[in-house]
Amino acid sequence: MTTADVTLPDLLTVPTPALLLDRHRLERNLARMSAHVARLGARLRPHVKTHKCPPIARKQVAGQFGGITISTLAEGFAFAEAGFDDLLYAVPVEPGKFGRLCQLARQVRRLAVLTDEPTLPPLLSAAAEAAGVSLDVFVEIDCGDGRTGVSFDHLDRIEHVARAVASARRLTLAGILTHAGQSYAARTTAERRTVAGLERDRMAQVAAALEQRGLAVPCISIGSTPTVVALDEPLPPNFEVRPGNYVFFDAFQAQCGVCAFDDCALTVLTAVVHRSEGKVVVDAGAIALSKDIGAADFFPHNGYGLVGDLAGQPLGLRVAAVSQEHGRIPVADPALLGRLPVGTRLRVVVNHSCLTAAQHTHYWVVDDGTIVARWPIVQGW
Amino acid sequence: MTTADVTLPDLLTVPTPALLLDRHRLERNLARMSAHVARLGARLRPHVKTHKCPPIARKQVAGQFGGITISTLAEGFAFAEAGFDDLLYAVPVEPGKFGRLCQLARQVRRLAVLTDEPTLPPLLSAAAEAAGVSLDVFVEIDCGDGRTGVSFDHLDRIEHVARAVASARRLTLAGILTHAGQSYAARTTAERRTVAGLERDRMAQVAAALEQRGLAVPCISIGSTPTVVALDEPLPPNFEVRPGNYVFFDAFQAQCGVCAFDDCALTVLTAVVHRSEGKVVVDAGAIALSKDIGAADFFPHNGYGLVGDLAGQPLGLRVAAVSQEHGRIPVADPALLGRLPVGTRLRVVVNHSCLTAAQHTHYWVVDDGTIVARWPIVQGW
Repeated sequence: MTTADVTLPDLLTVPTPALLLDRHRLERNLARMSAHVARLGARLRPHVKTHKCPPIARKQVAGQFGGITISTLAEGFAFAEAGFDDLLYAVPVEPGKFGRLCQLARQVRRLAVLTDEPTLPPLLSAAAEAAGVSLDVFVEIDCGDGRTGVSFDHLDRIEHVARAVASARRLTLAGILTHAGQSYAARTTAERRTVAGLERDRMAQVAAALEQRGLAVPCISIGSTPTVVALDEPLPPNFEVRPGNYVFFDAFQAQCGVCAFDDCALTVLTAVVHRSEGKVVVDAGAIALSKDIGAADFFPHNGYGLVGDLAGQPLGLRVAAVSQEHGRIPVADPALLGRLPVGTRLRVVVNHSCLTAAQHTHYWVVDDGTIVARWPIVQGW
Repeated sequence: MTTADVTLPDLLTVPTPALLLDRHRLERNLARMSAHVARLGARLRPHVKTHKCPPIARKQVAGQFGGITISTLAEGFAFAEAGFDDLLYAVPVEPGKFGRLCQLARQVRRLAVLTDEPTLPPLLSAAAEAAGVSLDVFVEIDCGDGRTGVSFDHLDRIEHVARAVASARRLTLAGILTHAGQSYAARTTAERRTVAGLERDRMAQVAAALEQRGLAVPCISIGSTPTVVALDEPLPPNFEVRPGNYVFFDAFQAQCGVCAFDDCALTVLTAVVHRSEGKVVVDAGAIALSKDIGAADFFPHNGYGLVGDLAGQPLGLRVAAVSQEHGRIPVADPALLGRLPVGTRLRVVVNHSCLTAAQHTHYWVVDDGTIVARWPIVQGW
């Protein structure tokens, strides 16, 4: 939907709370990552879980090979419908999803999944055969995150899973994949560079070991915005990277130094509904902002988001508490409080953009203070 | 949608993660609250923000006067469309919403709003007049929660707001309203009873003071599931109560003793996607469960939800960590871990049902282990 299709509201009339996407910042973030990944000599397969929005993904893959990473099968069907034909589903596959996966595989040129479970490939292959499709499969490796994947130093187990994939009729061993989620605990560029270096080196070692054991590893897939941003030397051949958060960034990433505060492209537009001594309350609460305090564990002064004025200029305020539809913003300065009567519209730079976006149904795209488009967000699973 | 309309999936085939609503527990919770409020001699105006689902609200108002409480105007339009005609919008009103409020007022018999701001009623009245509608207005009182409302002991300010409403042509002073959000910090029935008693007494005093000053107070609206449940004596005349969470309850309310664990009607059905030493990882993460750790601040052993088997029987496990689409469940007992291979379906009793439900698009209604209906959830604002 663009201005050509409908009359769009403006920032003073759009119903609040509303999710605003700054087009200029979005495009700058995309251009920077594309240039950075080109310097790394890697392939960019962006993770669309952050935005769940085909129009954003189209900009994201411009000049790239076109592959994307998805976090739900609902995203898969929506992006296939929108013309994306090379998908990687980045949550370990389990039998309850075989039916829908095969259905999705029929709609795209290539669908890749991941597993760390040696008993699973024969079952998946049988399902694929029954459905008349083929699937690419990555072996998931744990490089220190401790969430999913076979630990990078359990080479026999990794080989066992890889052989189970390689020997299944309808499956192709696509390579190995990891997510260095531990990078989110790093607090400096140096720490992130260490995590990123380990991620790269451990994956390269696993790939070399598998090749030595006679298994081809066409692709080494690594991920996470913090580690990709931290990499500063070209990657070895066959690396693919899957950053997601960089499209929007957020207060957490800015506080960590992964981006600048003025790279944050996503804000929630909200209205003051109450003013009393020392505070205002706005109509953006736990649903509009999300209750993710992952960042706040380390950065309590971020709270549930950093508050700016209608133009997005920081006011030095934060959302300190949320209930379902209320957000409380302490305002110590009486002069500032005097300028925030009921009805004042504010913009909150969100704490964790992936979770905030998932709680909305659409973005209002803002260009230089004007709403220029309304883009949908894929819901559910 | 019921079995008559479509072929419904069963618990083994419905795509995960999925939001399950136990019909028996729902109906038992509704019946108990209706009986309890009847004993209190009050009117029940349930808050639909917890479920955002017209079919549930229909059951909720059965035998009641039919009024409901809403938390967003999107709920307002959806419930008006579904035939509800007496709505109370329980977030303080601000000028940016006047247009849609007046539009909603045209679609229902009665729309009530609230304010604590004396400058607002004349503006609202002018908007209502221009739109050809009338609105009921409650003065919001703060009985100790510290979120919104005029403090109960600032009687002059309360009178000031009430007179601003009463003197506005298109507004009717509906009464006074409070939300005792501080009840969520109470940890025992005795503490909750104290909060509930203060809420009742302070509101009765404010009403008496206003009447003494010549202002009629037709309705005293109090709320919150914990305080309503804690009340054990009949309320004075003209009280209306607005509990919401009681339809589902959740792990937090159970841990607090507001309900029993087997009153919790809402679970997230999820599948194991990874198993390794000491843990499984499931496909219900921050979006499917919500990241609300309000409860976990006090009850870390609840985590992001308590884990049961497919029949809902507790397994003594919790979701200890979540990322967007992953939930980590520690499993110390090797024998139990052995019974949880990849693909196993589990049911998680959620931590805070209001926030979890708002992140899904529909409920699968379960009766004795069988899915019997699919009910929609209103999205957005």
